[in-house]
Amino acid sequence: MATYIGLDLGGTNIKISVFDDFFHRLGEKRTPTEVRLGSEHVLNRIYDAVLALLEELHLTCQDITCMGIGVPGILDIKNGISRFSPNFPKWEEVPIVAWMESHLHIPTYIDNDARVNLYGEWKFGAGKNRNNVLMITLGTGLGGAAVIDGRVIYGATGSAGEIGHINMFREGRECRCGSSGCLGRYVSALGILRTFREKVQAGQHSIICDWVNHDLDKVTADMLSRAYDDGDAVTIETIQETGKLLGYGLCAVFSLYNPEIIIVGGGMSRMGDRLLQYTREILDTHALRIPYGCCTIVTAVLGDAAGMLGAAVYAKEQFLQSAANNGPN
Amino acid sequence: MATYIGLDLGGTNIKISVFDDFFHRLGEKRTPTEVRLGSEHVLNRIYDAVLALLEELHLTCQDITCMGIGVPGILDIKNGISRFSPNFPKWEEVPIVAWMESHLHIPTYIDNDARVNLYGEWKFGAGKNRNNVLMITLGTGLGGAAVIDGRVIYGATGSAGEIGHINMFREGRECRCGSSGCLGRYVSALGILRTFREKVQAGQHSIICDWVNHDLDKVTADMLSRAYDDGDAVTIETIQETGKLLGYGLCAVFSLYNPEIIIVGGGMSRMGDRLLQYTREILDTHALRIPYGCCTIVTAVLGDAAGMLGAAVYAKEQFLQSAANNGPN
Repeated sequence: MATYIGLDLGGTNIKISVFDDFFHRLGEKRTPTEVRLGSEHVLNRIYDAVLALLEELHLTCQDITCMGIGVPGILDIKNGISRFSPNFPKWEEVPIVAWMESHLHIPTYIDNDARVNLYGEWKFGAGKNRNNVLMITLGTGLGGAAVIDGRVIYGATGSAGEIGHINMFREGRECRCGSSGCLGRYVSALGILRTFREKVQAGQHSIICDWVNHDLDKVTADMLSRAYDDGDAVTIETIQETGKLLGYGLCAVFSLYNPEIIIVGGGMSRMGDRLLQYTREILDTHALRIPYGCCTIVTAVLGDAAGMLGAAVYAKEQFLQSAANNGPN
Repeated sequence: MATYIGLDLGGTNIKISVFDDFFHRLGEKRTPTEVRLGSEHVLNRIYDAVLALLEELHLTCQDITCMGIGVPGILDIKNGISRFSPNFPKWEEVPIVAWMESHLHIPTYIDNDARVNLYGEWKFGAGKNRNNVLMITLGTGLGGAAVIDGRVIYGATGSAGEIGHINMFREGRECRCGSSGCLGRYVSALGILRTFREKVQAGQHSIICDWVNHDLDKVTADMLSRAYDDGDAVTIETIQETGKLLGYGLCAVFSLYNPEIIIVGGGMSRMGDRLLQYTREILDTHALRIPYGCCTIVTAVLGDAAGMLGAAVYAKEQFLQSAANNGPN
């Protein structure tokens, strides 16, 4: 029977699961990424963690059909290289696939973190049996990935789906991508916390200031949710502005992708309808009517397991395709 | 040998070509649509024109493998129905395919006008041998269609690619789609002429006013090109604003589609670099760098033949697929 590894390489933790052929989880391991120590260190930590998990399960590398890894940032998917990752220091042109295949001897495939989350939610979560799915991940940043007409899209350089870089303000907040005014600079944990800070620094008062002893760097997205429920005016204004901006951004996505379901995942999706009610308000008046009438917006159901599961599903598909001599494009 | 009909149903003219199996044109016919006389009249005009063209070519309906028709507006592609077309009065839920198949006995397929243009330019024009193509048609309105990973995309209700409805201004010009501030209300012949008129009505002077005896309804996009070449300040400002706005809109498209080539077609594309230089200026600073670095922007090469050719190519693909029992989705 075939067995798969799905690995979610995050800025904080490496999360690994082993799955059987029905994608039932046989075991799981989480370990700190220790990304500040550089790429070689991280690759070795993955190696150690995989071997430790396999040993717990009384398996060896020979028992594993293939491994999928979700990696944040810009990838060369075909050559298995992580070119650049904004939150990973000392991390450039890292040949993840070649390294893993030479050390673990397991066929390995990488894809970006948003896309492996999509594979998970599409095959086993909120997007099951749908042919047109948009997944957005509201985490530290804003990620996106899509299924159109039954296929996950990649585009010419593998960056199709990057909804975080839709231009929302002609001249707005600077973005690491080189542009400014990108959606992800406002609609993301970093973005919404900055909006909140700017309002407080401009003189508006929030109960959150008391919670963090006026150290605004300590504010979290979950605190915003709590303050929202307490009726804190500046927090409500912050979440309202952010939710509406997401709505305007999603208008472009509707027009271009025509999804039947939008799945909102990532840590900040815990805000739920506090945020999404304002998003829907804009979509109700501004999205293309027929496509919008056929579309539902839901929160993800698999939590942070989606990445591992999706990475394993993706790896299986790539493994079967490469047997038929095809890449992701 | 197989023979195909490609038909471009426009608001002004019905354009029909007959192609051989290599898509060499055997003959062509153009006739006024007379759209104001309603759908039954238009369907009869198509019928008459097809029979007249076939007679000229000494062919009968039995010689035709299949027929493709490009139709503007909202379609139900699978059921062959034109649901609504903004520029066609008395035109609702028109069962084009059923009508043609019962009268002409030729297997018939419809798709929207932007998409059949894309099929033409992709298979035989500026997009040949590319796997990721965005086609935008700058006509009376703004249309769009895309190939991603080697497939023309449709989406849940067949409206994927509608770049004309990307929201560019939170509250802007009203759009027939029900929203406001849509890209197509500014970047299109109707849009740019309105921008020009608004500037002149606000007191700016243009040499074009003399050309049209101050009847601003007589201004055309080609006049703007001429006035631009003459250094007319308000025209330059109009084209500059419009070109830049297209650039900001295309930033969203880059992020979402990651095309390797953008083909600009439609009558207004005759403005060429007068307009596109400003579009490129914005993309140079605001588009995602790696995708943009791998992408070229060109004008279409097939002119208004793209629609007929593309409709025929599309029909052939659908015919072969339906033989294999598959729809466009």
